[in-house]
Amino acid sequence: MRVLKHISLLGSTGSIGTQTLDVIRAYPNQFTLQSMSVGKNTDLALKQIHEFLPKLVSVQSKEDYDKLIHEVPSTTKVVYGAEGLIEVATVQESDVLVNAVLGSVGLAPTLAAIQAGKTIAIANKETLVTAGHIVTEEAKRHHVSLIPVDSEHSAIFQALNGEQIKEVDRLILTASGGSFRDRSRDQLEGVTVREALNHPNWSMGAKITIDSATMMNKGLEVIEAYWLFGIPYEKIDVVLHKESIIHSMVEYIDGSVIAQLGTPDMRGPIQYALTYPNRLPAVSKERLHLWELGTLNFTKLDMDRFRCMKFAYDAGKTGGTMPTVLNAANEVAVAYFLEGKLSFLEIEHMIEQALEGHTVLKQPTLEEIMAVDAETRAFIHSTIK
Amino acid sequence: MRVLKHISLLGSTGSIGTQTLDVIRAYPNQFTLQSMSVGKNTDLALKQIHEFLPKLVSVQSKEDYDKLIHEVPSTTKVVYGAEGLIEVATVQESDVLVNAVLGSVGLAPTLAAIQAGKTIAIANKETLVTAGHIVTEEAKRHHVSLIPVDSEHSAIFQALNGEQIKEVDRLILTASGGSFRDRSRDQLEGVTVREALNHPNWSMGAKITIDSATMMNKGLEVIEAYWLFGIPYEKIDVVLHKESIIHSMVEYIDGSVIAQLGTPDMRGPIQYALTYPNRLPAVSKERLHLWELGTLNFTKLDMDRFRCMKFAYDAGKTGGTMPTVLNAANEVAVAYFLEGKLSFLEIEHMIEQALEGHTVLKQPTLEEIMAVDAETRAFIHSTIK
Repeated sequence: MRVLKHISLLGSTGSIGTQTLDVIRAYPNQFTLQSMSVGKNTDLALKQIHEFLPKLVSVQSKEDYDKLIHEVPSTTKVVYGAEGLIEVATVQESDVLVNAVLGSVGLAPTLAAIQAGKTIAIANKETLVTAGHIVTEEAKRHHVSLIPVDSEHSAIFQALNGEQIKEVDRLILTASGGSFRDRSRDQLEGVTVREALNHPNWSMGAKITIDSATMMNKGLEVIEAYWLFGIPYEKIDVVLHKESIIHSMVEYIDGSVIAQLGTPDMRGPIQYALTYPNRLPAVSKERLHLWELGTLNFTKLDMDRFRCMKFAYDAGKTGGTMPTVLNAANEVAVAYFLEGKLSFLEIEHMIEQALEGHTVLKQPTLEEIMAVDAETRAFIHSTIK
Repeated sequence: MRVLKHISLLGSTGSIGTQTLDVIRAYPNQFTLQSMSVGKNTDLALKQIHEFLPKLVSVQSKEDYDKLIHEVPSTTKVVYGAEGLIEVATVQESDVLVNAVLGSVGLAPTLAAIQAGKTIAIANKETLVTAGHIVTEEAKRHHVSLIPVDSEHSAIFQALNGEQIKEVDRLILTASGGSFRDRSRDQLEGVTVREALNHPNWSMGAKITIDSATMMNKGLEVIEAYWLFGIPYEKIDVVLHKESIIHSMVEYIDGSVIAQLGTPDMRGPIQYALTYPNRLPAVSKERLHLWELGTLNFTKLDMDRFRCMKFAYDAGKTGGTMPTVLNAANEVAVAYFLEGKLSFLEIEHMIEQALEGHTVLKQPTLEEIMAVDAETRAFIHSTIK
């Protein structure tokens, strides 16, 4: 691959962000970092700025701005806040936006980048969950590609390579089952934050690790798959596969199933999103050897055990603002759980209450989505306080 | 798919042949049978002729010709012998030749069909093993596609769809291990023909079932893969996978592995070879449900346990006429085993003797290949008598 790609990165200090920088670091002749937004960890951000020398950096707050502005090289411009994210996402020199922020805060900069004609490498599933119809329509209008970074969607994207979407019979997402996969519902009473954060296969951020434990992560991925690939919910299945080796599959009308496999290392799908339609040697030297693993296991998903999966399918099928409520309620409830203010099972309960209390808007505008998102968050806050 | 394809079929009464006719029968608006060659089972052949009404049929001998000539419809021309095969393979009206005969007898008609510009759906691996360089060069010269029918090669072909061959790091063929996979070498002493014919997963002809038990089938497939995909032997691996659900895999330079999975039903790969690059609904309603299977198992292949695998890799790497000797010795030795004139372990021993006694010709002509093939067969005959 000889093409030099210029990259903007939202969320450089998070788990996907640092791994994206690992890939950029490995291929200095293929990739440049033009701009990035950083999270709370400003020490790490400073190191990254001095290593990659981006032209533009956005920090979270005016305070962070004041803290960093005299520490960065003179060639780096610093901005902050919601507008800073948009500036980072639309910087003229970049070809690709890697959206690796958490939560629905990724929506506005993604839309701005689409309108600016950037290719979107999307790791921020909340953007598609909360406003899938707007994002996909804008992408179509501006002839912009949405390339998945999530390992499951990257697997499906690879399994669709060279194939025709009309010949797809079923998408089969695999789910590790998260940290509590072997527990019954009764055994979920009183589990701690630390137990929930102990994911068996993947090393990820806190929010997504809790989402894995509740299985909401897989529910959001089902909705994400619906928008990315245009496959109806009836044709999207989830199978429990505790080893996370088969990352997902596509079944075609002739019964043939194409699967993508790999070691659980997010740098694989991140790199593929950046090199597509080409491939480059892996950053990691670790390779998949199936005989070392010995067995791969598969179990049917029980929607009564994993109620968030059912919420997600139902919200997705209802459509409109329902997935917005699902996502916003989940974000806030998980944050309260991480703070110790909600028990694990109350996460589900909060989401259920928010969904039941919502009157759906069928074709919401962006403003309506933002309003429903804010209302839902306020509802959860008020219920807990 | 709206394209009507006209098909010639070599070996209509064999296992692959009858399943090819299942596919043609299911899609009368997509496929017509123009010509076919039949085996010893002339009763079945007659039924097939009356059902599919091919314009041309080749039988094995003058005797069969005399037996059938007054039983076939007046629109069907009957021919016989080696020249009959070539006539069937090159009949003007056909677009595709499905080569489903057994053994190196498939070579000459395949070359004739390539020269006549037919697409080749190749189930007859011996053709590529015995004369891979000639067949692939002729196919290139005449701009003819070789589409695999073997489930493993069809899987690799599908896993390569939309990808670049230069980005392939490794082909990984899966092997069920055959009827004796759980036995040690000591436990192979004195096994019967009936035991050897009892394949755990696939229902196939006798010769290929014995080849599965000796693992020579997988060895021939490694050589077939080398020729079909142009990947060096060092990058072709075999892994034992007793369920035969993952039919084979391709590992790319970025560590991503694309696999093709399905139920063990040869009509899948046969149909894909006929519909490629499109797909049609499966003839069988049976679908793959991984949670019903529960587990997939993988084991490293032991070349000391399965000596035929080692013979095949060595013969393939040596090249020239060595794979011809491997294949011819195997064909004759397996035939003697099926007649009860050789023990199971003597199959390997015969092949080893033939390989050790051969002085390789590096770039053999077709005539030299035919001569080596005949000499090898004569050598085995003389050793046994």
